Amino acid sequence: MSQHVYKKIELVGSSTTSIEDAVQNAISLAEKTIRHMRWFEVVETRGHIEENKINHWQVTVKVGFTLDQ
Amino acid sequence: MSQHVYKKIELVGSSTTSIEDAVQNAISLAEKTIRHMRWFEVVETRGHIEENKINHWQVTVKVGFTLDQ
Amino acid sequence: MSQHVYKKIELVGSSTTSIEDAVQNAISLAEKTIRHMRWFEVVETRGHIEENKINHWQVTVKVGFTLDQ
Amino acid sequence: MSQHVYKKIELVGSSTTSIEDAVQNAISLAEKTIRHMRWFEVVETRGHIEENKINHWQVTVKVGFTLDQ
Amino acid sequence: MSQHVYKKIELVGSSTTSIEDAVQNAISLAEKTIRHMRWFEVVETRGHIEENKINHWQVTVKVGFTLDQ
Amino acid sequence: MSQHVYKKIELVGSSTTSIEDAVQNAISLAEKTIRHMRWFEVVETRGHIEENKINHWQVTVKVGFTLDQ
Amino acid sequence: MSQHVYKKIELVGSSTTSIEDAVQNAISLAEKTIRHMRWFEVVETRGHIEENKINHWQVTVKVGFTLDQ
Amino acid sequence: MSQHVYKKIELVGSSTTSIEDAVQNAISLAEKTIRHMRWFEVVETRGHIEENKINHWQVTVKVGFTLDQ
Amino acid sequence: MSQHVYKKIELVGSSTTSIEDAVQNAISLAEKTIRHMRWFEVVETRGHIEENKINHWQVTVKVGFTLDQ
Amino acid sequence: MSQHVYKKIELVGSSTTSIEDAVQNAISLAEKTIRHMRWFEVVETRGHIEENKINHWQVTVKVGFTLDQ
Amino acid sequence: MSQHVYKKIELVGSSTTSIEDAVQNAISLAEKTIRHMRWFEVVETRGHIEENKINHWQVTVKVGFTLDQ
Amino acid sequence: MSQHVYKKIELVGSSTTSIEDAVQNAISLAEKTIRHMRWFEVVETRGHIEENKINHWQVTVKVGFTLDQ
Repeated sequence: MSQHVYKKIELVGSSTTSIEDAVQNAISLAEKTIRHMRWFEVVETRGHIEENKINHWQVTVKVGFTLDQ
Repeated sequence: MSQHVYKKIELVGSSTTSIEDAVQNAISLAEKTIRHMRWFEVVETRGHIEENKINHWQVTVKVGFTLDQ
Repeated sequence: MSQHVYKKIELVGSSTTSIEDAVQNAISLAEKTIRHMRWFEVVETRGHIEENKINHWQVTVKVGFTLDQ
Repeated sequence: MSQHVYKKIELVGSSTTSIEDAVQNAISLAEKTIRHMRWFEVVETRGHIEENKINHWQVTVKVGFTLDQ
Repeated sequence: MSQHVYKKIELVGSSTTSIEDAVQNAISLAEKTIRHMRWFEVVETRGHIEENKINHWQVTVKVGFTLDQ
Repeated sequence: MSQHVYKKIELVGSSTTSIEDAVQNAISLAEKTIRHMRWFEVVETRGHIEENKINHWQVTVKVGFTLDQ
Repeated sequence: MSQHVYKKIELVGSSTTSIEDAVQNAISLAEKTIRHMRWFEVVETRGHIEENKINHWQVTVKVGFTLDQ
Repeated sequence: MSQHVYKKIELVGSSTTSIEDAVQNAISLAEKTIRHMRWFEVVETRGHIEENKINHWQVTVKVGFTLDQ
Repeated sequence: MSQHVYKKIELVGSSTTSIEDAVQNAISLAEKTIRHMRWFEVVETRGHIEENKINHWQVTVKVGFTLDQ
Repeated sequence: MSQHVYKKIELVGSSTTSIEDAVQNAISLAEKTIRHMRWFEVVETRGHIEENKINHWQVTVKVGFTLDQ
Repeated sequence: MSQHVYKKIELVGSSTTSIEDAVQNAISLAEKTIRHMRWFEVVETRGHIEENKINHWQVTVKVGFTLDQ
Repeated sequence: MSQHVYKKIELVGSSTTSIEDAVQNAISLAEKTIRHMRWFEVVETRGHIEENKINHWQVTVKVGFTLDQ
C-alpha cells in the first residue's frame, strides 16, 4: 500500500461451496462498478441451513480501492 | 437472504420521538438514491439533550441492499 | 439477583411495531418451555425492510433464568 | 459540539414502558446535580422479567455535559 | 427470516480438512436433537497442531433454529 | 480437545468467598442435567455489595461439553 | 435491582494477595465518599511484577450506586 | 448535529509526517466527490516502516456527511 | 502505579491543532477540580470538518487520579 | 491442554489458494525456529486483489507452544 | 512506568488452585529466559473440568518487560 | 505485502512530545534485534501526567516483520 487515499466499502458475497468462493463472488460482482480494488478484510462469516446441510455461505468483506487514479 | 451479493452502507437517522422512528427516517431518505433495501442492523444509539429533555434521538444503522438486480 | 445459579439462553424475537414488543414476543414464546425467567440483555437489534418501510424488527436477547428451584 | 471540554458520566435509568422512557428518567434525575447536559450514548439495554412479562427496562447511558461554563 | 421466534445455540465442530467441513460436522451431529435449523454464524476458528501440521480445525458456530413450529 | 462435537452453554454461578468458588458452584449445579463437561471460559465477573462489603461474587462462564457420547 | 436510577463510577483497587481483595479495597476506600453502593463489574485485571513475583494486583471495577435516596 | 440524515463512509488517508495530516489528506481528496462533510471518527491507525523509520502513516476514518441538502 | 486506590473519569478535550493538544486541554481544565491526576488512556479520537478542513479535534480520555491522599 | 506453561506468538501466513493453506504455511515456516507448537487461533482474515481476482489470502494466527520441555 | 521501551509477550499459565497461582506460574517459568518483567495484564481466564470439578485453571496474560537495559 | 510469512510483536514506546515520536522510539530500539520490520498497528495510546501536564506518551504498537529472508 503506497501513499494513496483509499475508500473501503462493505459487501456480502455468497457461495454454495466455500468461504473463499463467497469472497470472490462479491469481488466479481463489484468490479462492474468499482475499479482499482486492492485488498479485502473478512468481517463476518455466516450461512444458511436447509435440511441440516449448509445451503450457502454468506461472507461480509470490507473491500479497499484506490480513490486517486 | 438468498444467494445474491449485497452492499451495506452506514446511515444516521434522527427523530424527536423514538429509536424506531429514527431508523425509519434514515431509510425513507435513503430510498431516493438506493433501491432494493433489504435489512438493517442498529450499530449505535445516541441523542441530544436540551434543557434536561431528550431533544432528538440519533441512530446509526447499517443498511443492506441487493447489488445484482 | 440472589445467590442462585442461573442459565442464560439466546433468543431472537420479532415484531412489526417496536423493539420492546419484539423482546416481549421472545419471552412469551419461551415461557412454554422455560420457567423462572428473571432478566434479559439485548445483544443485537436489526430488522427487515420491505418497499422502504421497516417490515419487522428482530431483536436478539440473552435471557437468564434460575436453575436451582 | 464546539471547542469546550466535556465530562461523561455513566447512568442507569429504568422504566416500565420503554427504552426511550428509561433514558429520559435517568436524565431527569441527574438534572438535580448536573447542569449543561448535552448528549447521551446508549451503552447497554437490559430488563427484568416478572411472570413472563417485561417488568421494567434498565438502560445504561453515558451522558456528556460541559465543564467549562 | 420471517416473523418467528428463534433460539440460538453455540456448537464447536471439528474436521481434519477444512473450516467448511467443521461447520457441517457440527450441524450434522446437532440434527439428532434439534429440528428446523435455519442459519449459523461463525464465532471462533482455531485448531490443533501435531508435528507442525494442522491436525484438525475447531470452529465455533452459533446456530439459529425456529422455536415456534 | 479431540475431534468431537461440543456444545457450549452459559451459566452464572455465585459465591460469598471467591471467583473460583463461584465457577465451581455453577458447574456443581449443572452436573445434575449435563454430562461430560470438559472446559469453561469466564466471560463476566461481577458481584453485589452490602454495607460496603462484597456480599457475593457472580461469575458468568461458558461451559463446553461433549455431544457425541 | 429495582426501578431506581443508578450512577456507575470506575475505580482501581490493589492488593498484594488476591483479585478479590483488590476489589474489596477499592470499595472500602470509596465508602468514605459514596453511599448506597449496590454492585460492581470487573473490567480489567492486571498487576505489577517485582523480581519475578507478583508484587500487587490492580483490578479496575465499575461500581453502581443508587442516586435517588 | 441537527435532525438531518447522515451517511458515513470509510476512508484511508496517508501522510509521511503525522496522524493529523493523514486524516486531512483523506478529507481533501474526498471533497472532490462528497459535499457537506461534517465530522470524522478515527477507526484505525497504522503505518509502513522503511529501514527502521516510519515511512508513512495510514489512518482509517469514518466520515459523516449530510444527505438531505 | 503503587498500591493506592484510583478513580478514573472520562473527559472530552478539543483542539484546533492536534490530538496531543486536545488531551492536554482536557487535563488543564480538569485540574480546577481534580487533584493528583496520574495517567490517561485515549478511548476515542474524532473531529469536526468545516469546508473540507479539520476544524477541531475531539479526543475522549479516561483520566486516573489518586483517591487516597 | 495439560498443566504446562504456553507462549503464544502472532504470525501472518499467506496462500494463493485458501485460508486453510495460509495457516499451514505460517506454521510450516515457524517450525524452523519454534518447537512443540500445539494449537492456533485465527485472529484476522484478509487478502489482496489483483485485476478483480483474489491474488492471495493473508491469515493472522496466534500459535501456542509449550515452554516447559 | 518510566520512559523506556517495553515488549509485551503472551503466556498461558495453569494451576489447580487459583487464578492468582496460574499467573504466578506463568511468570515463574518465563523468568528463565526473560529479564526485567514489569507488569502483566489478564486477557483470558478459562479452565478444564474433570468429573464435574475444576481440574485446573488456565490464565492467559500479557507480560511487559523492559527492552532497554 | 507480498506472499511472505510475517511475525508480529507488541512494543510500547514512549515520548515526551508526541504519539508519532513514541512509535518511532519503539521501532528505533527494536531495530537492534529485529530486522526487516515492515509495518505497525497502533493498539493503545496512553500517557503519564505530572503536575497537570502530559509528562510522556506511551503508545503500544504491533510491529510486523518478515520471517522468511
